[in-house]
Amino acid sequence: MPTDDHHLHFMKRALQLAHRGAGRVSPNPMVGAVIVRDGRIIGEGYHVFERKDHAEVVALDQAGDLARGADLYLNLEPCSHFGRTPPCAPRLVAAGIRRVFIATRDPNPLVSGRGIATLVDSGIEVQEGLCREESALLNEKFFHFIQTRRPFVLLKLALSLDGRIATAAGESRWITGEAARRVVQRLRYEYDALLVGINTLLQDDPSLETRGARRKPLTKVILDSELRTPPRARVFLSPGPVLIFHSPGASSHRAEALRHQAFLQPVTRNIAGLDWNCVINLLAEKGITSVMVEGGGQIAASALSSGVVQKVAFFYAPTILGSEGLPGIGSLNVSSLSESIRLDGLKRTPLGPDFLVEGHVKGSAWTKRPARSQA
Amino acid sequence: MPTDDHHLHFMKRALQLAHRGAGRVSPNPMVGAVIVRDGRIIGEGYHVFERKDHAEVVALDQAGDLARGADLYLNLEPCSHFGRTPPCAPRLVAAGIRRVFIATRDPNPLVSGRGIATLVDSGIEVQEGLCREESALLNEKFFHFIQTRRPFVLLKLALSLDGRIATAAGESRWITGEAARRVVQRLRYEYDALLVGINTLLQDDPSLETRGARRKPLTKVILDSELRTPPRARVFLSPGPVLIFHSPGASSHRAEALRHQAFLQPVTRNIAGLDWNCVINLLAEKGITSVMVEGGGQIAASALSSGVVQKVAFFYAPTILGSEGLPGIGSLNVSSLSESIRLDGLKRTPLGPDFLVEGHVKGSAWTKRPARSQA
Repeated sequence: MPTDDHHLHFMKRALQLAHRGAGRVSPNPMVGAVIVRDGRIIGEGYHVFERKDHAEVVALDQAGDLARGADLYLNLEPCSHFGRTPPCAPRLVAAGIRRVFIATRDPNPLVSGRGIATLVDSGIEVQEGLCREESALLNEKFFHFIQTRRPFVLLKLALSLDGRIATAAGESRWITGEAARRVVQRLRYEYDALLVGINTLLQDDPSLETRGARRKPLTKVILDSELRTPPRARVFLSPGPVLIFHSPGASSHRAEALRHQAFLQPVTRNIAGLDWNCVINLLAEKGITSVMVEGGGQIAASALSSGVVQKVAFFYAPTILGSEGLPGIGSLNVSSLSESIRLDGLKRTPLGPDFLVEGHVKGSAWTKRPARSQA
Repeated sequence: MPTDDHHLHFMKRALQLAHRGAGRVSPNPMVGAVIVRDGRIIGEGYHVFERKDHAEVVALDQAGDLARGADLYLNLEPCSHFGRTPPCAPRLVAAGIRRVFIATRDPNPLVSGRGIATLVDSGIEVQEGLCREESALLNEKFFHFIQTRRPFVLLKLALSLDGRIATAAGESRWITGEAARRVVQRLRYEYDALLVGINTLLQDDPSLETRGARRKPLTKVILDSELRTPPRARVFLSPGPVLIFHSPGASSHRAEALRHQAFLQPVTRNIAGLDWNCVINLLAEKGITSVMVEGGGQIAASALSSGVVQKVAFFYAPTILGSEGLPGIGSLNVSSLSESIRLDGLKRTPLGPDFLVEGHVKGSAWTKRPARSQA
C-alpha cells in the first residue's frame, strides 16, 4: 500500500476537493479527483449533482493530452456502469492514465470492484486503501444508505457539561455560542432532513432552516403522535416540505388543520412512542438518505434505544445547569453499565468556548459495515 | 517582557522542574530554578519539603562559581524572609547572578515584590511575567490558599456523555477507563484531602487511597449529617486520618461507634445540607490547603451552589446512560441560563477512549484573584 508523503498529499487533496460537493451531491457520493504528472497537479475536479460530470471527467478535461501516462487520485472507485453519465472507468483507460490510487471501493456490493477490474484489465496499475477510513467517514451518509437502503441518522444535541439541554422552564437559547451554531448550520446543510419531537417544537418553535443553496430542499420532520403541531409554527415558514409522523388514532380535526401545509403520515406506535423503524423506512421510501435528529431528550432516547442512530454530535458549552435542567437523553432503561450505549472513534473539536464530541454508535450498522473488514 | 524562544525554553524547564515537587511540597509552593550561562544550563533544582533547600539554593550549589554573571529562571519570586531556611534573594546577590527571570510574584500580598526589590536594589536585572499564567496554574492551590487562607477545592467527577455518574442501581465501576483512573490517582496525590458524601460512601465503599510516597498523609473527609458511615467502611483501612463532618444533632450512639477511628466534627446545617463554608473553614484550620471533592451528585451540587469550588475536573467516558442514571450534578436551583454555573479557561485532554475537561468556576475566588490584574 503506498503510504509515502507524496501519495498522501495528493489523496488528501482529492478528499478536500470531494468535500466541496457537500450538500450538493445527494443522493450521489462526494468525489474528488486529482491528476498528477511529474509531481505536479495537471487536472482536478469534484462532483456536484447539477453539473452532472463526475469528478474524474472534470479532472481529465482539465488535464487534456497531458493525462497520458499520469497518475490519478480518487477517494472512491470510478463507476463502470451507465447512469446519468457514461461510465468513468473506460474514460480513464482511453485517456491513457497510467496509475490510479483509490481510497475506498464503491460501497454498493453489486458493483463494488467492477470499476477497479475495468482499469486493471486494461493494464492500469491500481493501488487501493490510502486514506480508506477518512474517505469512508467523508461519505458515511452515502455508504450507509447504499448498503442498508435506510437513511444515516445523526443525533445532534447542544448540552451543558452535566448533560442538560435546557433549564427546567425549557430555556435553551443559547446554551452554546456562535462558533458551535455555525457548525450546526454547516451540518444541517449536509443532511437531507432534520427531525424534532413535538415537545421541542412546542417549546422552542424552531424554524429548522438551513443556509446556503441546496440541491434538494431540506425536509423538516416532526414526530407528533397527537398532531399537536400548531398550524402557525415557524417550521412552516422556512423553505422545504414538512413531514409529520403521527399515530393512527390522532384527531382527524387536527389533521384537517395541518393537511394543506404538511405531509401527514400515520405510523404504528410501540412502547417508546412512534415506531422509529417504521419512521426510518418511510423516510427511505421518500428518498431521504440522511436525517439529523435535533431532540429533545425523549426523542433522542427513543432513537438511541431503537438502534436507528449511527452517530452522535454533542455540542458542549462550559456551563453546568444541575438536575432540574432537562436531560439531553431521556430514559434508556439501562440498568447496568454493560447495557449503556457506547461510542466508537470519538472525535473532539474545540469551538470557541464550546467543544464538539462526535462518535459512531457501537453496534450500529455503521460500525458493523462490510467495508470495515477490507481495512 | 522577554518572550523570545531562548528565555521561554529555560522558563519552561523551570516549570517542569517545579512540577517534580508535586505532592511533596505542601504547604509550600512548587518551585523550579534554572541557571544559564552562555546559553547552557549550569545548575538546576526544585523544591521538595523534606529536602528543605529551596530550588534556587539547589541550583546555585550545582553551578558553583560559574553562577557569577549567569541568568536565573524561576517560576516564583525568591523569598526575602527567614523561614525554615535563610532568605534566597540575598543568596542570589552573593552568588553574583546577573539577571533573574521570574514568572510570578509571591502571591502573599504581605511579602509580594520584596524578593524582587532585594534583587533590584543590589543591581540585579529582573524581568517578570514570562509564563505568568502557566506558573499561576501550576501553583493554583498554593496561590489560592495564601490569598484566601481557605483550601482550594476541585470538584472531580467521572461522567457519561449525558452527565451521569452511575446507573439507577448505583453501579459506577468503572465508567471511565485505565488512563483516566491513572490521572485521578495523580491528581489525588497533589491534594491534601479527598472528600465524599455519605451516599457515595455507602454506595461505593471507596478506600480513598492514593499511591506514591507523600509528605503529609492524605486526609479523607466525609460529609455525613447523620453519622451513617459504617465503622467497617474501607475508608478506614487506607492510610491517613478520616474526618467526618456531621450535624450537631447526630446520634451520640453512632458517634461513639466511630470515635476511635475518625475525627468527628459537628457543623451547622443549612438548606442544602451541611454548611460548606463552615466545612471549608474548619479544614483550613486543620492546615488543609487543598481538597478534591469526588461526589456524589448532591455533594457536587451543594459545593458548587455554595461557591466554594474553584475548579472542576470532569472525566467523560464515551458512553450514554440515559435519564435513569444518577445525575453527576444534583439540584442547583438554576431557573434561567444566565444563572447557570459557567467555567473559564476550559482545557480538554484525551485519555485513551475517555477525555478530561478542566475549567475554573467563573466568579470563584480563583478567577477573581488579585494576581490576575497584574497580567
